[in-house]
Amino acid sequence: MTGAVHEDCEVRFKPDDKTVLVACGTSLAAAAARAGVFIALPCGGRGTCGKCRVRLLEGQVSEITDAERDALSEEELAAGFRLACRTLVLGPATAEVPQASRALDRKEISLLQTRRFQLEPAVRNCVVKVDQASLEDQRSDLDRLRAALGQEFALPCSLWALRRLPAAIRASGRATRVTASNSRIVHVTPASEPDGVYGAAVDLGTTTVVGYLFDLEEGRYLASAASYNPQVRHGADVISRINHAISNSHGLGELHEEAVGVVNDVITQAAAQAKLNVEDIFEVVLVGNTCMHHLFLGIDPRHLGQSPYVASVRELVNVEARDLGLTVHPSANVVVLPVIAGFVGADTVGLILASELTDRDYSALAIDIGTNGEVALWNGQDLLVASCAAGPAFEGAQIKQGTRAIPGAIERVEVRDGDLLVHTIGDLPAVGICGSGLFDAVAVLLELGALDAMGRFSDGKGLSEKIAARMSGEGPERRVTLADAQATAEGSPVVLTQGDVRQVQLAKGAVRAAVELLLAEAGLRAEELGEVLLAGAFGNYVNPHSILRFGLLPRAVPEERVHGVGNAAGAGAALALLSVSERRRAEAIADRARHVELFTSTQFQEVFADAMLFV
Amino acid sequence: MTGAVHEDCEVRFKPDDKTVLVACGTSLAAAAARAGVFIALPCGGRGTCGKCRVRLLEGQVSEITDAERDALSEEELAAGFRLACRTLVLGPATAEVPQASRALDRKEISLLQTRRFQLEPAVRNCVVKVDQASLEDQRSDLDRLRAALGQEFALPCSLWALRRLPAAIRASGRATRVTASNSRIVHVTPASEPDGVYGAAVDLGTTTVVGYLFDLEEGRYLASAASYNPQVRHGADVISRINHAISNSHGLGELHEEAVGVVNDVITQAAAQAKLNVEDIFEVVLVGNTCMHHLFLGIDPRHLGQSPYVASVRELVNVEARDLGLTVHPSANVVVLPVIAGFVGADTVGLILASELTDRDYSALAIDIGTNGEVALWNGQDLLVASCAAGPAFEGAQIKQGTRAIPGAIERVEVRDGDLLVHTIGDLPAVGICGSGLFDAVAVLLELGALDAMGRFSDGKGLSEKIAARMSGEGPERRVTLADAQATAEGSPVVLTQGDVRQVQLAKGAVRAAVELLLAEAGLRAEELGEVLLAGAFGNYVNPHSILRFGLLPRAVPEERVHGVGNAAGAGAALALLSVSERRRAEAIADRARHVELFTSTQFQEVFADAMLFV
Repeated sequence: MTGAVHEDCEVRFKPDDKTVLVACGTSLAAAAARAGVFIALPCGGRGTCGKCRVRLLEGQVSEITDAERDALSEEELAAGFRLACRTLVLGPATAEVPQASRALDRKEISLLQTRRFQLEPAVRNCVVKVDQASLEDQRSDLDRLRAALGQEFALPCSLWALRRLPAAIRASGRATRVTASNSRIVHVTPASEPDGVYGAAVDLGTTTVVGYLFDLEEGRYLASAASYNPQVRHGADVISRINHAISNSHGLGELHEEAVGVVNDVITQAAAQAKLNVEDIFEVVLVGNTCMHHLFLGIDPRHLGQSPYVASVRELVNVEARDLGLTVHPSANVVVLPVIAGFVGADTVGLILASELTDRDYSALAIDIGTNGEVALWNGQDLLVASCAAGPAFEGAQIKQGTRAIPGAIERVEVRDGDLLVHTIGDLPAVGICGSGLFDAVAVLLELGALDAMGRFSDGKGLSEKIAARMSGEGPERRVTLADAQATAEGSPVVLTQGDVRQVQLAKGAVRAAVELLLAEAGLRAEELGEVLLAGAFGNYVNPHSILRFGLLPRAVPEERVHGVGNAAGAGAALALLSVSERRRAEAIADRARHVELFTSTQFQEVFADAMLFV
Repeated sequence: MTGAVHEDCEVRFKPDDKTVLVACGTSLAAAAARAGVFIALPCGGRGTCGKCRVRLLEGQVSEITDAERDALSEEELAAGFRLACRTLVLGPATAEVPQASRALDRKEISLLQTRRFQLEPAVRNCVVKVDQASLEDQRSDLDRLRAALGQEFALPCSLWALRRLPAAIRASGRATRVTASNSRIVHVTPASEPDGVYGAAVDLGTTTVVGYLFDLEEGRYLASAASYNPQVRHGADVISRINHAISNSHGLGELHEEAVGVVNDVITQAAAQAKLNVEDIFEVVLVGNTCMHHLFLGIDPRHLGQSPYVASVRELVNVEARDLGLTVHPSANVVVLPVIAGFVGADTVGLILASELTDRDYSALAIDIGTNGEVALWNGQDLLVASCAAGPAFEGAQIKQGTRAIPGAIERVEVRDGDLLVHTIGDLPAVGICGSGLFDAVAVLLELGALDAMGRFSDGKGLSEKIAARMSGEGPERRVTLADAQATAEGSPVVLTQGDVRQVQLAKGAVRAAVELLLAEAGLRAEELGEVLLAGAFGNYVNPHSILRFGLLPRAVPEERVHGVGNAAGAGAALALLSVSERRRAEAIADRARHVELFTSTQFQEVFADAMLFV
């Protein structure tokens, strides 16, 4: 059989149950990418690494290749296993993609795996053969290139591309690769040069910054990297950043450079992991709260911090990378997703987009737990949003041994045999405690009676011996040892202090108050919520029971309706990177959202005081 | 009478005989600008300097103001003189604009004064009042600005403008000036700040660079400045520039920086004269030959110098100023007019545009005499273009005492009382000889018999005593004194040497050969030419008799059909700056022109040898 059949074939992927129509002759790997199922291709799809094994359940595909006989055992072949990169679809087919073959190693943006979307990146790419000039054909280089390009590339040509044009079209073979982005030709290069078209999705948080890299031709996830935002040296929350911008003549410049610098860092780190050249990154989609959004663009944020708290720019912004100093391709388009209000940012837009909050026919709540907490409430008709100053506690900052959700972070705490049992990310020696670990620890300590409703540690009386033995110190120095010295990376115990609990109380009180007030504004009761989505870079594991015991949500919310969705803001940025339709949806979300101002609400302080309690 | 009448009034300006329809209530100065008649307004149209006096011949206008009574005498008022800036049109009117009131002091671009065009700059400007934000109106700054702006300003907002937006709309009075260029909002500023919208037209020649500044709101000419191209240190002609780019690793970078540097220089000089801030220049339109065009953009010119001699880019290019390093407004649009072929550049397009060559119903020839000579022939139907390497002699370079057409340059030579009589620009002590002076000097010396048909100086026999006394030296050192030591600025005589004549012969031979071959290609005889236009930065005065005697044109061309049009390329750039319709016409000209390749013509060398002779 040959690949010359050109009808469309329907391919289904299990257990995702995603289907896609592709031209017959397409590889299973490419079909999967188009269906939004990301298969690992460490060897670049050359059939040499054997990592992309999938199991063909039914359907017509190409014959088993030598590469597959080398990579797979007789038993595997007999069970239907194939290499996705070597297997061509020749008719309707169904394949199962094992977890081990999946590329998406960050649970953080796991929403991308379950979310249907059309792969249609804004960056386009094609290879054409340009006629040679002659005395009979003295058309300019660009005129000859344009004649070879289709109508969809009839776009202005950037200076960068113009300068590379003469050499590129004269390279041996004369096949020329042309890349277009944001309605301009931005790159021209000989097709013989190794090259790719990559994109980055970035979540620029007040405390944590994460970058995700994708292959835009295949829609394939490649790598990610995270870093703390260096702006934290000016203060933990957005208000302190705004104050720094106002009170120092170079403050705005500094904050802008730090924002750009950390975005460059995470992109560079991720590119190094994926072994790709940052100059081959042709688009960056960024989300962040409104303050981060303004600082990244170099726009004075002072008006965000003063009544009436308005953003200077709400709409989606396209900027060229070199105008910001990003080290990706100089003509790369940097898309900053729209914000909603002064304290409800593009991160919330990303969350709503990725979670499809507004596609539900029931009421649902989405919370982005960052240093700036942002809450979106969908009542089946209207989209209400609000924000609160949660502080950085859930991201591990201002917590004595807090950390981001890195390997070794305590992400889970439970009670086993009357004692605490802690789990770390990657089952490594403990290095600190991350957001989800804090939720669990506080919930467990409350249930054990080691912590009271006011947030005070008990004196140990009435507690089990093992728990009491973990408690030490007095007053603000009182603490619970979560991991003792032998179980940690540094050889000193990981503890949760009374001061840590106070930080956590402030953070949870702010979020809880925002939730209460937004429900009141919508005239909804907590038990009417069909779903509550918890997003944030605070950790990938979320225990709904802990969340409710901890009191981040009203107790009336049924436990089974609470779901962690990881870094949904980042997933939203990735969706807008991979699909221009999703980008337009992000704009529609920002347009329709109605902002509820809590800062000036007289009720807020009142509700906040109650919300800080663990009741 | 008040200005509340809103019908259109027809205003006619004499002696130009240009008419324009303007809203009643428009000032005569503004009406004149719209008609393409440039009136000097040194005080900015405030009625304080009295320089804009015009004579009302007939029509309905506003009453005489106090400012006019102060500025004009009783007799002047009785004779109908008014200040154009103070006089409002209230019905059909005719006014005469004396030469002294005209702003266009550069005869070089005098084509602009006779050429009809519609003032419609690409840069637009408006002042709006932006609503203040409140807790009830939390729309972003940009959303409120957009609501205040009309539909024609529904454009993307540049990063530069975004960064200035928050402060601009909050300035006292809240009136905000918005400037748009090339389909983007590029500047936002408080309307209270002194500000203007200016543009520059630049002719980037191989040897000479000239910049002209205009007020884009009024279409008013402001100032100009010229400089030698610093690239001359790498060689006089485009071939030596191309060689420098090829043979030095940093050659292209150097040439690019020099091109950008000299454009910055002439713009800065002209802006200083006009007392305006270069950052208020929002558009630059540039013409130049194809090599200068490529070097200015930083595009490798090597393929221009190799068969088949093709340009890399032919089409009109828009680039942002900061991407080139121009010191005008960083978001200013830099328009590089289209070229036609590898050696027929945007300067020729400018010449054809400004001279309306292709609007004639008879055959006409236009010659741009630069270091690279470019010739356009219109036969009433087709537009043929060709180029030749003339060398820089006509711009004063490689001539012992050659100079650009600067004050003190000998621009005219005639015979009076059996001796030479020279005229300098501005009647100043002579500083050297410019292009038109060379034409005259050679023609006069040929007529006197001091120079023979082969271009050799005579030994003085048979010449008048006065002429013979001016000749000295032997062989290549033989020379004629044009201005003796007392009549020069430096106290040493200005002479024309045998070597100078040789340079002039090479230059005129190349141009003449191109003219002959182009006529042959079109099947036209010289006497059939209805008009010959001579353009170039070589001097503003052109003596058709000298041109014909000198042999730049075939003798069969009737003398009265030869016209100097000054720097028509620069005038073309200015037209494209002042009018987007003219810009589109420039593109149409480049599209329709048919290039005739002379480099590879076997006839060229043959014709060239003959064309060097003064017969």
